[in-house]
Amino acid sequence: MKKHNFYAGPSILPQEAIDETIKALQNFEGTGLTLASVSHRSKEFDAVMNDAVALFKELLDIPEGYSVLFLGGGASTQFAMVPFNLMRKKALYVNTGTWSTKAIKEAKMFGDVIEIKGDDFFSIPTGYTVPDDVDYVHITTNNTIYGTEFHEDLDLNVPVVADMSSDIFSRKVDISKYALIYGGAQKNLAPAGVTFVIVRHDVLGKVEHKIPTMLNYQTHIDKNSMFNTPPVIPIFTALQTLKWVKANGGVEGMYKRNKEKADTLYAEIDRNKLFKGTVSKKDRSVMNICFVMNDEYKELESEFAEFAASKGMIGIKGHRSVGGFRASAYNALSIESINALVDVMKEFEAKQ
Amino acid sequence: MKKHNFYAGPSILPQEAIDETIKALQNFEGTGLTLASVSHRSKEFDAVMNDAVALFKELLDIPEGYSVLFLGGGASTQFAMVPFNLMRKKALYVNTGTWSTKAIKEAKMFGDVIEIKGDDFFSIPTGYTVPDDVDYVHITTNNTIYGTEFHEDLDLNVPVVADMSSDIFSRKVDISKYALIYGGAQKNLAPAGVTFVIVRHDVLGKVEHKIPTMLNYQTHIDKNSMFNTPPVIPIFTALQTLKWVKANGGVEGMYKRNKEKADTLYAEIDRNKLFKGTVSKKDRSVMNICFVMNDEYKELESEFAEFAASKGMIGIKGHRSVGGFRASAYNALSIESINALVDVMKEFEAKQ
Repeated sequence: MKKHNFYAGPSILPQEAIDETIKALQNFEGTGLTLASVSHRSKEFDAVMNDAVALFKELLDIPEGYSVLFLGGGASTQFAMVPFNLMRKKALYVNTGTWSTKAIKEAKMFGDVIEIKGDDFFSIPTGYTVPDDVDYVHITTNNTIYGTEFHEDLDLNVPVVADMSSDIFSRKVDISKYALIYGGAQKNLAPAGVTFVIVRHDVLGKVEHKIPTMLNYQTHIDKNSMFNTPPVIPIFTALQTLKWVKANGGVEGMYKRNKEKADTLYAEIDRNKLFKGTVSKKDRSVMNICFVMNDEYKELESEFAEFAASKGMIGIKGHRSVGGFRASAYNALSIESINALVDVMKEFEAKQ
Repeated sequence: MKKHNFYAGPSILPQEAIDETIKALQNFEGTGLTLASVSHRSKEFDAVMNDAVALFKELLDIPEGYSVLFLGGGASTQFAMVPFNLMRKKALYVNTGTWSTKAIKEAKMFGDVIEIKGDDFFSIPTGYTVPDDVDYVHITTNNTIYGTEFHEDLDLNVPVVADMSSDIFSRKVDISKYALIYGGAQKNLAPAGVTFVIVRHDVLGKVEHKIPTMLNYQTHIDKNSMFNTPPVIPIFTALQTLKWVKANGGVEGMYKRNKEKADTLYAEIDRNKLFKGTVSKKDRSVMNICFVMNDEYKELESEFAEFAASKGMIGIKGHRSVGGFRASAYNALSIESINALVDVMKEFEAKQ
């Protein structure tokens, strides 16, 4: 039976990227060695790093004055690295859920945090004022757990920092509106173990405290992410994913594909008598589509979960902190998988 | 032509571990999904993590009271994480080369460092006194660049911290003599992208400064290295490598194998009129065997490098900071590769 991979992350990647990774593990670039055992200082891997950075910049149309980094440690390390590098006195954080909350916790070790938060995490806060004297504003553009997403770039006069772990490369972004963008790569880019950072040089070098070498963005800018041994395999796979993105219409192509998938599934959630969406419609995530059983069908939740699993649907259980269901529809997920899930929802409805 | 992989890291891993990783990238544990796209919260990956920790503890005979962690960020991040977690006032660092020097640089951000250093990095300093009031002593047990190695565990009354990036699992170590051991896994354990930490619980929780969550060992102890998304593929491969270590006699088996390899190559270096070792004989590394041309044959250096490369020897160029040659002979390197290199050295000598 075909499996449909709706995991929230690590999550589905293009089959082409996996196939190329397997080939490289068998024999990397004709070296006769496995990719796993090749020096990161070899000319063959150096080319991988350079190509990955170049294609990353090309696909996101990154202007001059920015560097792209591939680091270890996950986005969770960035929660501390951002204030370590950028916080002089205070910053504004828009709290849109679990990940923002974690980022705020780290930022408070370095300075004052103005926290903007709605009544709940089912919509994106609006209508707040950003003081001119904050060092930066931090947002989480897509919220994997609650299923909300910023659909437009913020346009502010202070540096904007964005955690784009789960929607990078899913849509067009005006990079020039951001000072720093970071994310774990294990959604739309690569296997777990590499973190991307896009950083505008002019925001660095302004803090007075010392920064440990590995936590200093400048270290990695100066060494093209090769100050220490980088996560070789995930970077190789990231390059293959980027090639697939390019071959499939770039970020505009990805968005078209993603919008169709999301529209299809949200339409079924809104139509099907058993289910309802959890999120304010205007803020619905294109990547992580969250839904629950309507109150009168609540007791069918585990039955539906089992039914869907029996039909090859993997990873649609909602995050343990919110319950219900979540279908993650990252770039590499095909419309066929969404259609299969819609069919399962219809079939289950017909049985009631 | 057969390639012999002498890279210093990332470096040779057991073929069995690579083969199992490829299989898992094709279909992980019968899930029908690639290992690259499986949630780290899945029961299948949870089992990998638990098995890797258990086998790690078994093979190194780690006593109660220690945790084994698999983190991102590389050993270079540990250079800061160690003092972040352990430094109250001062620590003693034995400086045995490039890596220790980097560790010392980070430690100085957190307190006073007593630095013990020999006249050069071609031997391991001895005869120094360790004050009772240091928070810890830090050593780098094997020095990949200069080719020296501590052949015995230190026996001190203060906590000992060791960077064992390049000799973990190569020999028996009395873990009870250490408070903390860390290392990048990309030598004897896994592809680049995962860092192991063995930490004794009683040394933690004693500093007064705040520690960013991801840099706090306690975070990862509490969550079994799953506080954030761990580097899934390298951890899977690490488990396969550990199985191979076990099947090949454990760390005693590895040491026997490694000693034979090192003795064979050092014997040829000492015999061959063209070459000489660079390191004090008592401190010669079993893992990274460094040598140069004798003065009267100095001009043959690049010719030998080319000759060796033409015979399938990969990665024997010395580190850019010291020159000459370095044959890294990690666990997975076979005696056949060492014999092949010895033959190349003999053949080149005969041509002169």
